[in-house]
Amino acid sequence: MILNNEQLAINTIRVLGVEAIDKANSGHPGIVLGAAPIMHTLFSKSMKIYPKESKWIDRDRFVMSAGHGSALLYATLHLTGYNISIDDLKKFRTLNSLTPGHPEVHLTDGVDASSGPLGQGIGEAVGLAISEKHLSAKFPKLINHYTFALCGDGDLQEGISQEAISYAGHLGLNKLIVLYDSNDIQLDGEVKETFSEDVSMKFKSMNWEYILVKDGEDVEEIHHAVEKAKLSSKPTLIEVKTIIGRGALSQGTSAVHGSPIKNEEVLAMRKAIGGDSFTVREEVYDFYREASKKGEAAYHKWKEFYSLLDTDLFDKMMNNQIIIDESLLPAFKIGESLATRVSSGKVLEKLNALNPMLIGGSADLSSSTKVAGADGVFTSQNPVGRNLKFGVREHAMAAICNGIALHGGLKPFCSGFFVFSDYMKPSIRLAAIMELPVVYIFTHDSIAVGEDGPTHQPIEQLTMLRSIPNLNVIRPADANEVKEAYKIAFESKNRPTAIILTRQNVPTLIENTFVEKGAYIVRNPKEYEGIFIATGSELQLALTAAEKLAEEGINIRVVNMPSVNLFEQQSPEYREEILPSFITKRVAVEMSEASHLYKYVGLFGDVLNINEFGRSANGDAVIKYFNFTSEKLIEKYHNLPKIDITRYL
Amino acid sequence: MILNNEQLAINTIRVLGVEAIDKANSGHPGIVLGAAPIMHTLFSKSMKIYPKESKWIDRDRFVMSAGHGSALLYATLHLTGYNISIDDLKKFRTLNSLTPGHPEVHLTDGVDASSGPLGQGIGEAVGLAISEKHLSAKFPKLINHYTFALCGDGDLQEGISQEAISYAGHLGLNKLIVLYDSNDIQLDGEVKETFSEDVSMKFKSMNWEYILVKDGEDVEEIHHAVEKAKLSSKPTLIEVKTIIGRGALSQGTSAVHGSPIKNEEVLAMRKAIGGDSFTVREEVYDFYREASKKGEAAYHKWKEFYSLLDTDLFDKMMNNQIIIDESLLPAFKIGESLATRVSSGKVLEKLNALNPMLIGGSADLSSSTKVAGADGVFTSQNPVGRNLKFGVREHAMAAICNGIALHGGLKPFCSGFFVFSDYMKPSIRLAAIMELPVVYIFTHDSIAVGEDGPTHQPIEQLTMLRSIPNLNVIRPADANEVKEAYKIAFESKNRPTAIILTRQNVPTLIENTFVEKGAYIVRNPKEYEGIFIATGSELQLALTAAEKLAEEGINIRVVNMPSVNLFEQQSPEYREEILPSFITKRVAVEMSEASHLYKYVGLFGDVLNINEFGRSANGDAVIKYFNFTSEKLIEKYHNLPKIDITRYL
Repeated sequence: MILNNEQLAINTIRVLGVEAIDKANSGHPGIVLGAAPIMHTLFSKSMKIYPKESKWIDRDRFVMSAGHGSALLYATLHLTGYNISIDDLKKFRTLNSLTPGHPEVHLTDGVDASSGPLGQGIGEAVGLAISEKHLSAKFPKLINHYTFALCGDGDLQEGISQEAISYAGHLGLNKLIVLYDSNDIQLDGEVKETFSEDVSMKFKSMNWEYILVKDGEDVEEIHHAVEKAKLSSKPTLIEVKTIIGRGALSQGTSAVHGSPIKNEEVLAMRKAIGGDSFTVREEVYDFYREASKKGEAAYHKWKEFYSLLDTDLFDKMMNNQIIIDESLLPAFKIGESLATRVSSGKVLEKLNALNPMLIGGSADLSSSTKVAGADGVFTSQNPVGRNLKFGVREHAMAAICNGIALHGGLKPFCSGFFVFSDYMKPSIRLAAIMELPVVYIFTHDSIAVGEDGPTHQPIEQLTMLRSIPNLNVIRPADANEVKEAYKIAFESKNRPTAIILTRQNVPTLIENTFVEKGAYIVRNPKEYEGIFIATGSELQLALTAAEKLAEEGINIRVVNMPSVNLFEQQSPEYREEILPSFITKRVAVEMSEASHLYKYVGLFGDVLNINEFGRSANGDAVIKYFNFTSEKLIEKYHNLPKIDITRYL
Repeated sequence: MILNNEQLAINTIRVLGVEAIDKANSGHPGIVLGAAPIMHTLFSKSMKIYPKESKWIDRDRFVMSAGHGSALLYATLHLTGYNISIDDLKKFRTLNSLTPGHPEVHLTDGVDASSGPLGQGIGEAVGLAISEKHLSAKFPKLINHYTFALCGDGDLQEGISQEAISYAGHLGLNKLIVLYDSNDIQLDGEVKETFSEDVSMKFKSMNWEYILVKDGEDVEEIHHAVEKAKLSSKPTLIEVKTIIGRGALSQGTSAVHGSPIKNEEVLAMRKAIGGDSFTVREEVYDFYREASKKGEAAYHKWKEFYSLLDTDLFDKMMNNQIIIDESLLPAFKIGESLATRVSSGKVLEKLNALNPMLIGGSADLSSSTKVAGADGVFTSQNPVGRNLKFGVREHAMAAICNGIALHGGLKPFCSGFFVFSDYMKPSIRLAAIMELPVVYIFTHDSIAVGEDGPTHQPIEQLTMLRSIPNLNVIRPADANEVKEAYKIAFESKNRPTAIILTRQNVPTLIENTFVEKGAYIVRNPKEYEGIFIATGSELQLALTAAEKLAEEGINIRVVNMPSVNLFEQQSPEYREEILPSFITKRVAVEMSEASHLYKYVGLFGDVLNINEFGRSANGDAVIKYFNFTSEKLIEKYHNLPKIDITRYL
């Protein structure tokens, strides 16, 4: 068989992919074999990329939403000139390699987004396209690129995708192009066993362009579809009919989706293209080198533009030069009583005005959470708007913020009632994995929500967020802590931050805040026998209880702990200074499940918390019903076991 | 103005609703005033209900998916004869009333589902309709009813709804009728600011019937649409155009969505229908009494059928007579090594065969999780099938299981990779709130997942689930504990259960399991100076470390803790027996974030856990990388501070 160089290139992607999977004895050959022509077309013909400058801000973006297709992506990236070597391909799915089981943006050159949990990639792509539309409206000469995603059948069954697709259609994100590897097979069998939508009709109903490519082997047809999509005034779905595992014995069946094919089959495929395993014929490298010239030229042209323009604002945004000067922020007086959602709203409004890179909004709860972006609602008519009206699409909201953060040049924030963080959890986790400094602003943070009742009263959500690695969770006690929380959140480079706020008023208590320390002393008798630990709105309760105990002659230190996660990042010495281990009489208080606080009270301490769902009633009535009173806290303290500890150090 | 009784009835619903909201000074008048004619039509004309027998298994079901419309629901339920008094309406949104802020099925007569977090109600309705289709295929004379839901704009923006709607269309659930209160307004403003779908086209693309009711005040038009929907071979969406807050000064604006209208307005509305506040004119009660006769007749006819038929199987299913006789289940030999997902598969298969009320499946991961229902795939052609192929729709899967459990007669289970429990969290929470014994079977439970990498390796998911009130989380150490876990899960009456299973092989270690106790002693030297606490696959590690320490002359008790939640339900005496507080040398081990275990190790103990995301590599390599070795456990033990405690009791 004589292959032209293009066909050879496609088959080389295939073979490198299945060789990597074969060596790892783990991976997904189905998509590698089925979708290689799509990847080849995108990376050699359709996309504006310059692999030597893989972080170029105006490059086209590519999201492998079907993240199990990582081997396909890595093989393509290697051939097109990214910094992934044959050796890296050989280390596929091995410890600390650059080629992990699913793409990881912070690890691998040429990977624009981490993906894998289905649906997340589509949301990220929508966020990337929002960034592009906004920045391109501001900097038309400097930002003008497309966003591509490759998704599979599974992606389109996920709710998060549907939210993101609906919003993208509403916004008219015409430079978003999603290629759908449509192979009629999913993990458990044929797609038709669980899915029977008219995909074309559905996308059209959501204001998308739909293009069908009948033959997924036909590079020209794929390329033509992409070029057509580029001209559309809407986002486009290109459904490409492919054969899963094409060329394998089990092609067209779910058997080839996620299990390595036989070594003999891999060898036969290699034999068909020639060379030893994990080698690439020079004409293939030549082909891609030639193909990359267009991107190289585009890059240099961009550099030229850049050198000719006044790029002050552009640089400021791209370098994330956030201004969080306390003197410019609203001042709150000690004793002033206001909900932290309200102080948050005031601070954020000012930050928005000072910092053009801030963009964000709420999932249809701006009027309650007091969170909105500046410069009007972001729409296709007003792309410079920085207020994203996400609609009741919490999950996509969080994924879209990931995409915005991935793009560069913008800092996203989003908000909702705290209980709805549940809907966003998978995307918050991904932000933490990707080390993206997305900011989540959650209000209505406890049973004090009141009348809306148990479905709307957070109990376990603090625990849920605190347990996510690399996420800062901050629950400010007052308006001044709110200010510092924002400073930490927006100055963060590689950790997302969740700021947890009250619906109800709380007094402004603290002059000098140390939120960055996670926990600090706010009441410190010279001699003391016990410690109260409190977070957020419960700080005042702990202080009141300590004052009352002082009247009984019992001295209590009060530790304010706005962030368990930040406290854990402090030195052992600092932590010992705040919570000396020889003081075992400790009670923590938090209107939540609060499991993380047990670590700080020990076997002989106690926690005043909640282990059931809330109640529908006025907030004060619910607080009382659940015994969040200084009396109860004092009672808990009196009931602590009396022990004596000698520590031999 | 002269009103006919029907118009008076509708206006009475409206006035009772806004009076309740006015008294509570909290609630959502917009939907009460806008959608009253829909509720009136359903409850007086369309639905087969007999309020005096509100638990009648063959009644039509109604889900108020727009749960913030609770006042509308309660007013309607009162008028139609459910056990909600005028006094209950007056106690709207007050502590421990029968009329909480969002509908709660376990509290209030006539409420078929708890709702409030948007989208959940749609999923529940799909589950109810699946139950009906299945049971009606088995018992055509005894089960034959419709499922109705009322949703708003927000509901349809949620991804979970889209998943559920897609699956319902695929299954051809023709007896599912969703009424869409389409009023062009959502909380933050006009719907068109964030949503511009062609709803008709979209539903048709997902195999639904679509009917438009142009005038939401026209009872005949609504009724006609419902009757037409009943005859469809597909599920039906009836879009009813309404005016939010109709009749209020702020009608047609978002101001009336969620804030009480002025007291003067309420008084004026009351004046228009006559009578004192919170009263109902006798002709209105008469109207509904008359309307209820059809339902009463249907109920008696059903009773007659029931008395004439052989109802052995029917009764068994309705009464949930589960057979979990250990002697009928697979036996596992001590020392036998197999993944708990595999032993789970064997146990479940047998349970499915023994118990016709079990129904369930997986979100496109049956081949990996080894979880499937019996009797073939559930489809419109095979409605007796008990294997639900949910597709990659984790969130809807969980909500649908809630609906199935709500219906009665069936016990639902579902499964996926543990990391995807994130996608299901909002619905798992609702199962716990509703006290529904849904069973979740999660496999691939730790970093031992291996190659798929950080996006697929659970770290914080155990903590997330353990923190949900009223949810049992069980992580069996071996095949014998798996058996007991299933017994607990399927015998549960009012708690959902999550069973957390390994991908990798683990040895069968325990002859006599006590999973129901949550934690128990598996190694108990007569004298011992320390305690190891382990869960799931880490038990063997703890046992090995204890054996090695014994060689050094150090005696360690090993406590196996398959369920933190069940342990917390034991008596203080039992807990003290297992973990005596004077033994402070304790190390817990779990390949997870494991925050709940700190409670049991105290200030002077330690936990061998993970506080970062995983790595992509072979499972054994990842385990080693994160130091889950007996050596590390021993090292942790040796490093514990040396303290001496005297306890004064």
